[in-house]
Amino acid sequence: MPVSPFDWTDDEARRRAGAGLVRSLRPRTAAPELLDLASNDYLGLSRHAQVTEAAVEAARHWGAGSTGSRLVTGSTTLHADLEDALARFCGFEAALVFSSGYAANLAALTALTGADSLIVSDAGNHASVVDGCRLSRATTAVVPHADPDAVRKALDGHRGRAVVVTDSVFSVDGDAAPLTALAEACRESGAALLADDAHGLGVLGEGGRGALAAAGLAGADDVVATLTLSKSLGSQGGAVLGPARVIDHLVNTARTFIFDTGLAPAAAGAALGALRLLRNEPERAGRARKVASELYERLTGAGLTAVRPDAAVVSVRAPSAPEAVRWAADCRAAGLAVGCFRPPSVPDGISRLRLTARADLTERQIVAAVATVVDTAPRTAS
Amino acid sequence: MPVSPFDWTDDEARRRAGAGLVRSLRPRTAAPELLDLASNDYLGLSRHAQVTEAAVEAARHWGAGSTGSRLVTGSTTLHADLEDALARFCGFEAALVFSSGYAANLAALTALTGADSLIVSDAGNHASVVDGCRLSRATTAVVPHADPDAVRKALDGHRGRAVVVTDSVFSVDGDAAPLTALAEACRESGAALLADDAHGLGVLGEGGRGALAAAGLAGADDVVATLTLSKSLGSQGGAVLGPARVIDHLVNTARTFIFDTGLAPAAAGAALGALRLLRNEPERAGRARKVASELYERLTGAGLTAVRPDAAVVSVRAPSAPEAVRWAADCRAAGLAVGCFRPPSVPDGISRLRLTARADLTERQIVAAVATVVDTAPRTAS
Ligand SMILES: Cc1ncc(COP(=O)(O)O)c(C=O)c1O
Ligand SMILES: Cc1ncc(COP(=O)(O)O)c(C=O)c1O
Repeated sequence: MPVSPFDWTDDEARRRAGAGLVRSLRPRTAAPELLDLASNDYLGLSRHAQVTEAAVEAARHWGAGSTGSRLVTGSTTLHADLEDALARFCGFEAALVFSSGYAANLAALTALTGADSLIVSDAGNHASVVDGCRLSRATTAVVPHADPDAVRKALDGHRGRAVVVTDSVFSVDGDAAPLTALAEACRESGAALLADDAHGLGVLGEGGRGALAAAGLAGADDVVATLTLSKSLGSQGGAVLGPARVIDHLVNTARTFIFDTGLAPAAAGAALGALRLLRNEPERAGRARKVASELYERLTGAGLTAVRPDAAVVSVRAPSAPEAVRWAADCRAAGLAVGCFRPPSVPDGISRLRLTARADLTERQIVAAVATVVDTAPRTAS
Repeated sequence: MPVSPFDWTDDEARRRAGAGLVRSLRPRTAAPELLDLASNDYLGLSRHAQVTEAAVEAARHWGAGSTGSRLVTGSTTLHADLEDALARFCGFEAALVFSSGYAANLAALTALTGADSLIVSDAGNHASVVDGCRLSRATTAVVPHADPDAVRKALDGHRGRAVVVTDSVFSVDGDAAPLTALAEACRESGAALLADDAHGLGVLGEGGRGALAAAGLAGADDVVATLTLSKSLGSQGGAVLGPARVIDHLVNTARTFIFDTGLAPAAAGAALGALRLLRNEPERAGRARKVASELYERLTGAGLTAVRPDAAVVSVRAPSAPEAVRWAADCRAAGLAVGCFRPPSVPDGISRLRLTARADLTERQIVAAVATVVDTAPRTAS
């Protein structure tokens, strides 16, 4: 066979197969043939009629695409309304919408730092935060997970700008960052705090206003939040929230804002519809948290090892990557979809099942889901 | 006033104001009160009923969001259908859909290179390609614009993997890359060719199959293409097209694929609807090209300096950044929306108006648009 510049991908595929780390796509149908404890649709809004009809209306009124970058033709009054609504709901001065939460994190980290900046980043931060650090020209200090003293030490003695960045709720284990202590550490040395509230929005804070609102940090002049519209809001897209001058700076300099097509109207409309619904039904947030703790109590009560959930993610430890894969497959065979996280998608090398609470899970569904996870557990999981 | 860690953004805002380089968002309404020669909606599909109704149907059937990352719950059979349709339409073995073209470029450049790789990148490449180079661990050699000999020289003597990356149609000036000569240079040294066909899809090649198909390079085992769904297809999202083993490698390793929520169903549905329409109405591609050359002929005939368009983008040179801004504003005041590109959004520091051809522009609209651009031109523009 002639040599191709991609022959090496076959070697890597063999290596993955040997290590039991092959990933493949498994397209699902629209009929929920599985009980879903794997998605990030924490409030069950992605298929809520008020949300999907807001998407429908936006597509019909505005078209299927935004037709250009935000500074050319891609900003509609719908985008502006969504930005106003997000800022108001979460308690920030201003907001800027992106095509994804990933793009929002890349924007915040690159545009708010320079070559003389220091970024202090939690070891458990999401891949998009890590990539934002890499893409920036700043120096990045990775600090141990959820450790404000380590942050303080990393900031100590640095001259020039500094940003401390953390997931507000960590995506894999579902534990919350010590935001109050981190803000304190930042203020001692004049650093900014950047919190990715992807898993906090809609779940934490009064009526789901997010982790920053819950910590009394929303709207502070030294705090910036990033969001995704794709989890609790059931849509797609991302946002950066902060002081108006920070948002203005992003409009002028953030490459993933300036050189990316504006969010599709249907996604913007759906997110706006979800925010309206959340304002009218603030109890959904608390319900998601309650379902999560019930899952946790029942799973650990049955002898499994799990992380006490601070939001809607319940992480259950698996003995090994192959056993995690087998465990998730057995759950699936029994009618339950759960997430299976293993290297290289986990920062610490520990494989786990990732269960997500949804506000709209019934008592009976919770009991059934726990029974399935417990019944299919590896012997060594507890 | 107390010191805030974002005080420096005020200094930068002042600097921008002093240099006449302030950007601000100007949300548009849905009523097309301006004649649009600014968007990238080259085929006029973003508001085509078959496309918007495909978005509507997808939102109702699948929900407003995909609910998770593609390897967890974010892959639906709709995504699989879109990937099949894109691969077939463009003539590649396989395709993978992303939430944006930006994310697709980051994925291809990071996942197909390693620390021992060389990326040879055209000086005029899009920001998302540049960011992909920065985010990769490879060494990047930036070569003069559209210069296969410079590419050859850059590849010469490199051991290890090499990728030559180019926009197929450059986003600012609308000129096409010398794909055949670049592929030849790649083959001489065993490098892969990566072409971003954002502005070629729907416009170049038979029936709009893209620049790679036009050059006879689609489906080659050493060629990868990236696409956006947000321009000719009138939707949102991106894709990587290539050999199946390359796509499989991306599924397993590309961070902007693995750690990003799957594309919203409405956007996937709309793109699929646009592809169907394009297959049934292949004449749209040629019409977009014809409108572009007519714009070019009329503008240069009136004495303006423009770049001969290879696709649907017509770039008209402006004497300076402030005059470009004034020119675009005068066009707008006269009812015409045109793009205004100036530093730092242009790689070469030259400001220009960027006009885009749409397949659905009428003869009368073309004449009116040209008259407006000519009438408002700075004295020194020709
Ligand atoms: C903590 C965190 N931040 C950012 C993102 C990226 O958001 P998006 O999927 O909208 O790109 C995710 C997940 O997708 C996440 O879990
Ligand atoms: C050449 C090129 N590549 C990639 C992109 C990014 O695509 P998207 O807007 O879908 O992120 C664009 C423009 O937006 C572009 O012009």
